[in-house]
Amino acid sequence: MELFIIPLGTASAIPTRTRHLSSVALWRAGRLLLFDCGEGTQYRLLAAHLKSSRLEAIFITHFHGDHFYGLFGLLATLSMVNRTDPLVVVGPEGIGKVIESVPGLSAKERGFPIRYVELAEDVTHAVVFETPEYVVTARPVEHRVFTVGYRFEERMRPGHLDVARAQALGVTDPAQYRALKEGQPVWARNRWVRPEEVVGPPIPGRTFAYLTDTRPCENGRLLAEGVDLLYHEATFGDEHRALAIERGHATAREAAELARAAGAHRLLLGHFSARYEDPSPLVAEARIIFPNTEAAEELKRYAVPLHNPRQASLQETANVTDSRGR
Amino acid sequence: MELFIIPLGTASAIPTRTRHLSSVALWRAGRLLLFDCGEGTQYRLLAAHLKSSRLEAIFITHFHGDHFYGLFGLLATLSMVNRTDPLVVVGPEGIGKVIESVPGLSAKERGFPIRYVELAEDVTHAVVFETPEYVVTARPVEHRVFTVGYRFEERMRPGHLDVARAQALGVTDPAQYRALKEGQPVWARNRWVRPEEVVGPPIPGRTFAYLTDTRPCENGRLLAEGVDLLYHEATFGDEHRALAIERGHATAREAAELARAAGAHRLLLGHFSARYEDPSPLVAEARIIFPNTEAAEELKRYAVPLHNPRQASLQETANVTDSRGR
Repeated sequence: MELFIIPLGTASAIPTRTRHLSSVALWRAGRLLLFDCGEGTQYRLLAAHLKSSRLEAIFITHFHGDHFYGLFGLLATLSMVNRTDPLVVVGPEGIGKVIESVPGLSAKERGFPIRYVELAEDVTHAVVFETPEYVVTARPVEHRVFTVGYRFEERMRPGHLDVARAQALGVTDPAQYRALKEGQPVWARNRWVRPEEVVGPPIPGRTFAYLTDTRPCENGRLLAEGVDLLYHEATFGDEHRALAIERGHATAREAAELARAAGAHRLLLGHFSARYEDPSPLVAEARIIFPNTEAAEELKRYAVPLHNPRQASLQETANVTDSRGR
Repeated sequence: MELFIIPLGTASAIPTRTRHLSSVALWRAGRLLLFDCGEGTQYRLLAAHLKSSRLEAIFITHFHGDHFYGLFGLLATLSMVNRTDPLVVVGPEGIGKVIESVPGLSAKERGFPIRYVELAEDVTHAVVFETPEYVVTARPVEHRVFTVGYRFEERMRPGHLDVARAQALGVTDPAQYRALKEGQPVWARNRWVRPEEVVGPPIPGRTFAYLTDTRPCENGRLLAEGVDLLYHEATFGDEHRALAIERGHATAREAAELARAAGAHRLLLGHFSARYEDPSPLVAEARIIFPNTEAAEELKRYAVPLHNPRQASLQETANVTDSRGR
């Protein structure tokens, strides 16, 4: 089942001729999620050939304009193309009021309902969106204003059924196949066939974390714990660490340190200051700490394959807090 | 003195892969005006190599999102690049409240002041912005919601001084040149040298009108009267005239009829429905009525030269209302 991350905008604060304002798309089996929605996101969806009609939910990190001013135009367009399906918008408390106050976007003017999930500043850890296939959680992170980070996690899926083996044991009914995949024994040739005889181990879910704008912090690490792909801001390089601290941002090195501490598999850096026309020096600084690092390239599709070794140990290490020293 | 019109976005309602939401820039001697500011305008200014720091005023026609959602990001960026000069924002009544309600854009959060010029629904004809060099006026036009059209008009400038001739008559002092250009006689070689002896006729100003979204209407014609360049919406072609009427838009032919009735010199069509990937059929329909018509091309610079014959007669025909039959 395909799962891609597509960075739509990797600029910080102000756009450049080559970088757009913050937004990262997650495309999974024909459904779309957006993390942040800076101005121009609807153009970037067009450019990325991602159908905005497939949008299920939008997750906003904080109320700095470069992360959410694109909501207005995108929602207006969804209404104009006659969307009727509800849309979920997750963000800091007040996001509903902000949207509904803009002319054209009130519930009366729009053609489709929005379900707002608003996070109060005292939130510690919240499930903000879930479907039968996946869960998105949020935790507060450390920026100049209230900001949250997000973690996307597929639920564990039943293992693969070995049909040939099942048939050899006399199981031929599709209803029995379903029962076996759901963990129930079935009766065939005068005996109980147990699931473990014909169904492989459960397939762990794939994971993605989105962390911007933030200093490296414990909640960031928790959100990124063991993820297959981590998108983390790297607004500055080493030489501007003081500025990063002052403005509540992270350097590329700090993003890499967090990725390592969290046991993430792969790191994409984004949210680059306009001063870095070429982000490769930032990538170089990060790779010293965390070799599997790249600069997020806008419109490129990053597949999120399950990184098995990590997943195998995820359950055991979930409560280990001293993994930072690895 | 250079005067260019640069269409930044020529889409209607929803953007396409090749067309952006409504905005037209006017660049005059290093200063910038914007007519409408759809989402993405700040990106289009970058693409057009127009410095947003040169912005003097923004004129919004109406409260449909595709005409003003780009204000938010543009204003935020101006603040982030440390603008301190005041900016003028002209638009329908309530535009100040809309802007100031968006997180990040209140007067307290912004680094520069905005002077709002708000037009009430009962406005008939208003001067909305003026400088020593030019004037912008507005009139209500006919759309589904309250909408205004705009006319930009340079003030008449003093004629050219024939320096060689002035010197032959004994006038050599720069202060005397200035006086002559301002219409005052000067004393040289024991006689009064009158301005008309050495200064050419006053140079009429150049004019531009911006009309979208609107049905063709009398106020539109008045705004476009004798302009050197008219930008007019042409959302639909002939085959969708009923739709144009229903939605308060114009067909290409109707735009051309208005241009002809107004005695405009040149017509740029824009605000094309997404159904017209190629707008040339619309241009063909318009040219039957008004040959000097083109489809506005995004990012192209359209010089606005003075069209003398028209200007010469402008003063006489200003009050003639039956020019429609020409």
